Amino acid sequence: MDSPLPLDCGRELKEVNIRYETAGTLNEDRSNAVLVTHALSGDAHVCGRHTPEDKKPGWWDEMIGPGRPVDTNKYFVICSNVIGGCSGSTGPQSIDPDTGKPYNMSFPVITVADMVRAQKRLVEHLGISKLLAVLGGSMGGMQVLQWAVDYPDAMECFIPIATASCFTPQNIAFDWVAREAIKADPNWNNGNYTPEASPDHGLAAARMLAHITYLSEESMGRKFGRALQNKSELDFAFNYDFAVESYLQYQGQRFVERFDANSYFYITRATDYFDLTAKTDGDLFKAVSNVKAAALVVAFSSDWLFPTEQSRKIVDALIRNGSEVSFCEIKSGYGHDAFLLEVDTLGRMIKDFLHYHQKGYSHE
Amino acid sequence: MDSPLPLDCGRELKEVNIRYETAGTLNEDRSNAVLVTHALSGDAHVCGRHTPEDKKPGWWDEMIGPGRPVDTNKYFVICSNVIGGCSGSTGPQSIDPDTGKPYNMSFPVITVADMVRAQKRLVEHLGISKLLAVLGGSMGGMQVLQWAVDYPDAMECFIPIATASCFTPQNIAFDWVAREAIKADPNWNNGNYTPEASPDHGLAAARMLAHITYLSEESMGRKFGRALQNKSELDFAFNYDFAVESYLQYQGQRFVERFDANSYFYITRATDYFDLTAKTDGDLFKAVSNVKAAALVVAFSSDWLFPTEQSRKIVDALIRNGSEVSFCEIKSGYGHDAFLLEVDTLGRMIKDFLHYHQKGYSHE
Repeated sequence: MDSPLPLDCGRELKEVNIRYETAGTLNEDRSNAVLVTHALSGDAHVCGRHTPEDKKPGWWDEMIGPGRPVDTNKYFVICSNVIGGCSGSTGPQSIDPDTGKPYNMSFPVITVADMVRAQKRLVEHLGISKLLAVLGGSMGGMQVLQWAVDYPDAMECFIPIATASCFTPQNIAFDWVAREAIKADPNWNNGNYTPEASPDHGLAAARMLAHITYLSEESMGRKFGRALQNKSELDFAFNYDFAVESYLQYQGQRFVERFDANSYFYITRATDYFDLTAKTDGDLFKAVSNVKAAALVVAFSSDWLFPTEQSRKIVDALIRNGSEVSFCEIKSGYGHDAFLLEVDTLGRMIKDFLHYHQKGYSHE
Repeated sequence: MDSPLPLDCGRELKEVNIRYETAGTLNEDRSNAVLVTHALSGDAHVCGRHTPEDKKPGWWDEMIGPGRPVDTNKYFVICSNVIGGCSGSTGPQSIDPDTGKPYNMSFPVITVADMVRAQKRLVEHLGISKLLAVLGGSMGGMQVLQWAVDYPDAMECFIPIATASCFTPQNIAFDWVAREAIKADPNWNNGNYTPEASPDHGLAAARMLAHITYLSEESMGRKFGRALQNKSELDFAFNYDFAVESYLQYQGQRFVERFDANSYFYITRATDYFDLTAKTDGDLFKAVSNVKAAALVVAFSSDWLFPTEQSRKIVDALIRNGSEVSFCEIKSGYGHDAFLLEVDTLGRMIKDFLHYHQKGYSHE
């Protein structure tokens, strides 16, 4: 993008790159575009494989693709890496044009609204003035809500999933501890690490902590219980004895291979700062008073990171606002991760909702 | 203690010191002794002040003392620091008699049953063959349950509070991450740190994480909400903005002043390993089949670390066993911490229960 991007903190990003992927074809009247927003550790690669040799497809491949609930035979799907991220869009790893060196921790603190502002430019750059839908879960859901509030005319409908209108103190607290774990790793070095000596230990601990909050007690009980990992007796030591420990360790290791510690600071801070009601004195009804698009709000019964109650608050405010709102709490034992796992139930709902609103649009 | 203490791991402790405190007076027939077991970070100093200048009394002073629910005018209260701890009893900071150096991480991995075995020796050393009661919350409650199973004739009654018959995979997972945070601190150095350079950063992160699990989302919401700490606007930085962050940071700092990182490894591992049903193939009814004493089981409605359901399982097994059981779920918004905060409600219950069972005993 050519012109600087103004940020909520008062600073601006002189140069902004947005890594994005698209799937499907934009129709002639440009009315079939669906923007998918990603969660904390997501990226632009939302569906399909770049090459047939790719072991894994995009992160929401079961939801998006030809014949999938978000059918790329019908819709033009866009997904971009958030600014502040580490998967191609401008973030702390990028070169600061003023110094010629990586920003690291001199990167400005960004907000969810900043992420959305950058996405809006991308959508305009693609020649789309009105999206059919914006949809996403968790931090992706925050972006969805921010879109509906900041750009009320820019979409037919929006689908915030497993999210909330603000981050709770418990959410903030978990993020704080995660960052403290990274800080405790000497390799972090105030963000000035090298690829050869990155704070893997701290970042892995941060990820493991977050991972616990993505599961439910029930799903952990069912998946692991107190089963031991490749042993029949306790070791009486501090290596992993339990399957759940081995699983967490694996998740932590995998994460450091694909994520950047400084980005973890910026992305989590953006979620901490997320509060739709920040400018309306805590009044959510006022905060959504500009919203024009129709909403499908989805929560999951065992999600304790973003409990259903948080979604209900959004629904109540939108109803009071006179918005067209559909709401569903999907019964699931998977905890917060359900938004990625309950594809059958969630997919049917999203498919019908998009279909309904696309038809509505074409008949206008 | 003179003779070595055998441990579940197969090793033994050649020398065992138990730091303990007592309050009240043992009556003539030695029938009024109440053993209080402490939680993860507790110690022997359960009530009163050592000197009038002490800023704070013992950790359960509102519950225990003259005229308090556990009335030291009537009862002889004993509380000892667990082995593996760092507040006077033998633990990783102690000198290994075989090497003349501190054990550090060569200290044997101990279990809740080992802690209780050491307490039993202390109680015998005090000339008490039958306690009136054993009571404690959280990890203290695990010790209470272990007492009732391992020494069924050694007490009239037992009061496990805010606890469970085994640690769940979610509990184990949180402990794992806490220890990973300590390991990430270079000062930890596999446990070979000096008092001048101890792994404060990692230990503080571990404590902060644990602290989140002691509160409920509700209590954090009520106590902090999204209030800022001594500022009217967000800093757009990574120092603390939110009151909850400042609070956690304070709790972490305070903790490292009084706790030892290696002890944190040992004590948390003991809780990970805690499973009353380990020898009965997961059958809790079989596990409690030796229990003879009467039980008062107490849970708190917003405790998500040890949910009420866990207490109900214990109650069900004891009832099936024909034990005398009282059970109460106290409605509280304080989360797991409620066992230290709901003194009025919990205290009345404990007071009556002890009174009833002491009378029963004296009429035998």
